[in-house]
Amino acid sequence: MRLRNVKNKEEILNSSSFLVKAPKEYCGKWNSYFHNSNPIYIEIGMGKGKFIRELARRNPNINYIGIEKYDSVVAKCLPKIDPDLKNLAIIRMDALEIDQVFSKEISRIYLNFSDPWPKKRHHLRRLSSIVFLKKYEGIFKDDFDIWMRTDNSSLFCYSLMSFSEEGYVLKNLTLDLHKDLPEDFVTTEYEDRFSNQGMPIYSVEAVKVSNKVNK
Amino acid sequence: MRLRNVKNKEEILNSSSFLVKAPKEYCGKWNSYFHNSNPIYIEIGMGKGKFIRELARRNPNINYIGIEKYDSVVAKCLPKIDPDLKNLAIIRMDALEIDQVFSKEISRIYLNFSDPWPKKRHHLRRLSSIVFLKKYEGIFKDDFDIWMRTDNSSLFCYSLMSFSEEGYVLKNLTLDLHKDLPEDFVTTEYEDRFSNQGMPIYSVEAVKVSNKVNK
Repeated sequence: MRLRNVKNKEEILNSSSFLVKAPKEYCGKWNSYFHNSNPIYIEIGMGKGKFIRELARRNPNINYIGIEKYDSVVAKCLPKIDPDLKNLAIIRMDALEIDQVFSKEISRIYLNFSDPWPKKRHHLRRLSSIVFLKKYEGIFKDDFDIWMRTDNSSLFCYSLMSFSEEGYVLKNLTLDLHKDLPEDFVTTEYEDRFSNQGMPIYSVEAVKVSNKVNK
Repeated sequence: MRLRNVKNKEEILNSSSFLVKAPKEYCGKWNSYFHNSNPIYIEIGMGKGKFIRELARRNPNINYIGIEKYDSVVAKCLPKIDPDLKNLAIIRMDALEIDQVFSKEISRIYLNFSDPWPKKRHHLRRLSSIVFLKKYEGIFKDDFDIWMRTDNSSLFCYSLMSFSEEGYVLKNLTLDLHKDLPEDFVTTEYEDRFSNQGMPIYSVEAVKVSNKVNK
């Protein structure tokens, strides 16, 4: 994503009640943050947050946490959040720290249009690499899944191989997600721009059931 | 494949030394058929056999068995086989009988451009369905793999899900096999016709290692 500076960035970040300033303090206690025991779904690399904001609005019985690395992008997301939402939190962090922020409490990860890191020597930086899958093991609770959507065929193939290597079962795999979609389907900003050009979107749900976790 | 009758079909079938007339008699004993202990690779649905004939020619230390359901198609394959080949056998049979013909002796299955059986109610007829994967379990020896190639995205997605469900690890997965291929790459007749039209070929190697077989 191209980054444009946001002028009053600091002010937006400091004044938002949705941005969690010290997320590591909630590690293992995120349900207490939300004051309920509902499942927690996270999106790593939420961008401006269109996808997760809309999911939070539609599904009040699920807690959502959007994660984004860049201040400027987070600052663009925060003002767009419906102030009445009780089930959405935003964290500014690098995904590499994810296992310091969550512990055995996440039920689903969304990876939407993640950075493909196309160079082979960078493959471990991909959010579906073995490095990250090992980190996710520690943050997941019971049965869990990773929902991935991308327009990058190399990243998609790499991810499918990576998931299978780690014992995930692949569900709802498609090479053309936008074919025959329901009208109320939730998309990301990037996805809207991309699929309007007629390019295919690849999608998969990688599922792990708890009795297979400790194999 | 469109079937054209072959006039002297019976004569061709009866006179070929490559066609195994009573394959069930060799169940569990195929290495004795080939008079060696080399690995045995099979292709289910070989069509006119371009792919497996060429593999057999190039790799004398692997035994190949081509399987095809239709007499007429087998009759077109047989005259094309190099008579000097010692490592190729052809079987006319329905793939459903595969577990009556082989037992714990196959190291690789090739599924090239298999019938996609597009209707949902026919999905168990697909050669990568759970019905067939269960049959394959009994014919495989030690570590083994299934190499699939297809131009049908629905069949490909279905197969990836099916493989992952059965604990296969996916390797060399690509959505465009013919991009950057070596010149001496072995193709099927169907593939040549199809990829010349510029359509993508999907490919995967689904691998099972022996310590996972009896999980």
